Amino acid sequence: MSAAVRIGLVSISDRASRGVYQDQGLPALEEWLRAALSTPFEVVTRLIPDEQPEVEATLKELADTCCLVLTTGGTGPAPRDITPEATLAVADKVLPGFGEQMRAVSLKYVPTAILSRQVAVVRGKSLIVNLPGQPKAIKETLDGVFAAVPYCIDLIGGPCLETREEVVKAFRPKSAQKPS
Amino acid sequence: MSAAVRIGLVSISDRASRGVYQDQGLPALEEWLRAALSTPFEVVTRLIPDEQPEVEATLKELADTCCLVLTTGGTGPAPRDITPEATLAVADKVLPGFGEQMRAVSLKYVPTAILSRQVAVVRGKSLIVNLPGQPKAIKETLDGVFAAVPYCIDLIGGPCLETREEVVKAFRPKSAQKPS
Amino acid sequence: MSAAVRIGLVSISDRASRGVYQDQGLPALEEWLRAALSTPFEVVTRLIPDEQPEVEATLKELADTCCLVLTTGGTGPAPRDITPEATLAVADKVLPGFGEQMRAVSLKYVPTAILSRQVAVVRGKSLIVNLPGQPKAIKETLDGVFAAVPYCIDLIGGPCLETREEVVKAFRPKSAQKPS
Repeated sequence: MSAAVRIGLVSISDRASRGVYQDQGLPALEEWLRAALSTPFEVVTRLIPDEQPEVEATLKELADTCCLVLTTGGTGPAPRDITPEATLAVADKVLPGFGEQMRAVSLKYVPTAILSRQVAVVRGKSLIVNLPGQPKAIKETLDGVFAAVPYCIDLIGGPCLETREEVVKAFRPKSAQKPS
Repeated sequence: MSAAVRIGLVSISDRASRGVYQDQGLPALEEWLRAALSTPFEVVTRLIPDEQPEVEATLKELADTCCLVLTTGGTGPAPRDITPEATLAVADKVLPGFGEQMRAVSLKYVPTAILSRQVAVVRGKSLIVNLPGQPKAIKETLDGVFAAVPYCIDLIGGPCLETREEVVKAFRPKSAQKPS
Repeated sequence: MSAAVRIGLVSISDRASRGVYQDQGLPALEEWLRAALSTPFEVVTRLIPDEQPEVEATLKELADTCCLVLTTGGTGPAPRDITPEATLAVADKVLPGFGEQMRAVSLKYVPTAILSRQVAVVRGKSLIVNLPGQPKAIKETLDGVFAAVPYCIDLIGGPCLETREEVVKAFRPKSAQKPS
């Protein structure tokens, strides 16, 4: 008996969390994952305002039971954008390559990609990755970095995630591959 | 009546500030801005040595009244290069995408671009960006990142800057554009 | 009489340091340097486990007498990977461009390059650079960044390193070149 794979999805937005508009981040994240992952998984979702203590508490809670936590929103330069600060505050290790590569990917579409402060970190056995707020940008950046996610989760002691190669091909070094 | 747009320019150099040679950074910064911005603006200039407390105090003073502060010089690995340290010390938020993109742009010209430690940060309603010391490199990096600067200043509550499209085309997402 | 140029090489690996397998990092680092540098030099080598206090102490000791210290191993996201933390803990200045460029170079070969957390820092008159663990990746990343290393060492007060141009061409700005 193996426990189900759990993935945490957190949409961070003052207005969406108050119902001023419909959140589009959580559906976009789940849709991408349903298409990309062949491993069965369940999602745990949260829709919260841009309050750093609340974001930190949510990330801590989800990282305890989820091998992967994806956030959407709150990564810009505006005063209320505190997602990166909250993520760094709960980090055991910071992985600067994710933010660099997500910005490089987004920069092919919009020059304002350099304003995104998104980070990725390890907390315990969970990988936490900040994603943009717009569904289109969520897909572009996940397409650009997800190939590295399953091996990262292997390395931090999480479950083995398998992907659908027509969407994204998970990369594992030959030395790390299991015998067939 | 709207207050004039003010932009702070800070040249950080022991030798130029002592008059050992003529500062070339401030004229290069102002020349680029005069060509690029169609919005009227005034510049506030400072020429100071590579002393961290003095750089921090200058950045704080200028950020209080300028929507944009550009520095030149002091970003290398030498012991007297302390511009990034001073900039980070006065930051509310760090924007890593600027440094990444400025180094990527400079790397097309010189392999030593990776030695530059330049950063960009938000302090209050001001964006502070470190630029290289050489006029040629100032132009190359401003050409490479300035398209994102006006929208960043919008997001932190500053004035609306408009550019001359033949020099640089300011990018604002459609959702953020004002009706014509 | 000039003192010999000394370069420190540190392989950081629990298993190799216990003799579980043969270390391949130190030979790969030395082989690359012997091919690339025309300046005579001697190497000082250390093979140590992934223990942060031991890595910090080793880096401090070597930085006192070596103008360049290269590490291999321990830069991934796993709990025992602490090389970047140890390197940052002994840093006077951080040079983010090295990590960015090394990841960009490795990304041409493997999408998991973004998982590497490698950094480069200045400590006193020594440049410390984290490299990957695999010999192939060591060569790829040194090929990608070493052109900037000799000028960096000039700037921090170290000896003048000359390279063999057919392997890597050291770049020094014209303003910094000595008269012939």
